[in-house]
Amino acid sequence: MAKAIHVRVPGTSANCGPGFDCLGLACSIYNDLTLTLTEEPGLSIDIRGDGARIIPRDERNVVWRSVRYLLDKAGHTEWQGGRLELVNHIPLSRGLGSSAAAIVAGLKAANVWLGNPFNRHELLQFATDIEGHPDNVAPAIYGGFTSSISQDGHVECLTFLPRYRMRYVVAVPDFPLPTKKAREVVPQEVTRADAVYNIGRASMLVGALCKGSERYLRYALDDALHQPYRAKLIPGMYEVFAAAKQAGAYGASLSGAGPCLIAFVPENRHCADDVAYAMQKRFADFNVRARMLNMRLDTRGAHVINERPQADADAKTATVDQPQANADA
Amino acid sequence: MAKAIHVRVPGTSANCGPGFDCLGLACSIYNDLTLTLTEEPGLSIDIRGDGARIIPRDERNVVWRSVRYLLDKAGHTEWQGGRLELVNHIPLSRGLGSSAAAIVAGLKAANVWLGNPFNRHELLQFATDIEGHPDNVAPAIYGGFTSSISQDGHVECLTFLPRYRMRYVVAVPDFPLPTKKAREVVPQEVTRADAVYNIGRASMLVGALCKGSERYLRYALDDALHQPYRAKLIPGMYEVFAAAKQAGAYGASLSGAGPCLIAFVPENRHCADDVAYAMQKRFADFNVRARMLNMRLDTRGAHVINERPQADADAKTATVDQPQANADA
Repeated sequence: MAKAIHVRVPGTSANCGPGFDCLGLACSIYNDLTLTLTEEPGLSIDIRGDGARIIPRDERNVVWRSVRYLLDKAGHTEWQGGRLELVNHIPLSRGLGSSAAAIVAGLKAANVWLGNPFNRHELLQFATDIEGHPDNVAPAIYGGFTSSISQDGHVECLTFLPRYRMRYVVAVPDFPLPTKKAREVVPQEVTRADAVYNIGRASMLVGALCKGSERYLRYALDDALHQPYRAKLIPGMYEVFAAAKQAGAYGASLSGAGPCLIAFVPENRHCADDVAYAMQKRFADFNVRARMLNMRLDTRGAHVINERPQADADAKTATVDQPQANADA
Repeated sequence: MAKAIHVRVPGTSANCGPGFDCLGLACSIYNDLTLTLTEEPGLSIDIRGDGARIIPRDERNVVWRSVRYLLDKAGHTEWQGGRLELVNHIPLSRGLGSSAAAIVAGLKAANVWLGNPFNRHELLQFATDIEGHPDNVAPAIYGGFTSSISQDGHVECLTFLPRYRMRYVVAVPDFPLPTKKAREVVPQEVTRADAVYNIGRASMLVGALCKGSERYLRYALDDALHQPYRAKLIPGMYEVFAAAKQAGAYGASLSGAGPCLIAFVPENRHCADDVAYAMQKRFADFNVRARMLNMRLDTRGAHVINERPQADADAKTATVDQPQANADA
């Protein structure tokens, strides 16, 4: 029986309002990858769940390319082919880090396959090199909240956990928004005042999360650098933010480049369902159909579910190894 | 014997590298104010220490104007005149918040005089209205580190303490640099990339301080928004930063708009004197004479020293009530 590596990677939400291209968080929705490498050439990719109909099943597949990237970095040329089984729960092209999850899954599984020659910081560097920016891959690897920077291609990432429990309520509109398109509308030049606006709020947000000072979240989730420009791509965006706040959320923001909107909801107010309902209803006023996810923070990041004989794997996939997402369809 | 209010206000260092116009810290160098209000018109201002020769002693005095501002806000018209004794240790126009300290001293003393009708958050709002920005007045009022934002004239400020002890070594060049001049060189428009540079580092800095993750400080003190432009006003600035780091500091930055440079030094490395020496020496290479301050974080902010009969006050000023600054001339 061939060895198989099974890894699970969380979805992620970048920006978190003012933390444009820097802040991110991991949430309790997951993609699973089971990887077997072979010395003979030949690639078999099985995909279930989100994107199963459109994700390529050949050499172009991002998960597979990330596997190959890591094998190359490790100098292992003996593994020519592979078998990949993907079970995807993270919605595709919606701003919940499906691309980052694919990259991290491939890197993580290949790394485990080789006996972990690279540490997480090295995986972060590889993932950033592939993805082009660290803000989704960092929380996908580490879990929790992350603050990432790059300098001359070198990536650093600070991880932290908020000192109060929150629910992350996400509205997933029924249309995709390619990141490229969402980036094009954001200007290359910004006013100093808008930059200061975000610096103050991003630093206040991190401080408020680390200290547990909840009351600041109502100011600290605002943004001046990308949301105002992206609003035109997402009908009713600001109105949905307002509805979330009205229903009990601290605030809401675009998830990554959108179109998902994410609300930060205090767990102890037990209003996550109300927030979800209010957001969905308000979106409907703008003719946007959205399904709602009610998630927790993922604090583990990418991790191995088990390493087991292949024959065993198929039997278990459907039961024990189902993602523990708190996602409501 | 007339009542006298004696308040002490710390010096402050704004920006802290990437936290342009947002972050600030209070340090252990102080200005003292002893205030007596009278129902008869007439103003007497006695000034000792820094700026004694150039600070106005009439109605234009900033401390007195701040006293009057608070009396007006409280609707107290009965106090027409006053006697102010100022003992200044914070260097003037050097980027250590002497202006903020003057404003906060006046507001605080007048507030105490009236029996504290306003809380600290209200004093912060008043001080920001007078100063024009919150980044120095916030730590002057609260102590510790602060992250401040303004929105539509309304100010919010999060305070926090780093989880490791640091020394704040400041080089005070022998030339003043008016904030107005230092602001003029900073462009009104910035690239998105530079804004992201600072957002990432400012949020990482706050997270690293709150979490106690020291190793991130070596990246998180860098700035792309104001220091590159102000460098031309301060010969050798980047070289002094490098010297500080070389001698054991986590990093260094402009203090506010300069010309003071502040190094963040781990207390447990016992290298603050080395850092001070290295900075002073490197500045000298650029023909800048600088005196060095070796300070701790002030964690109290503006506070009352005592309320005592006036006759008693003069006797004590020179001894017990001397500021507890760790400032080395």
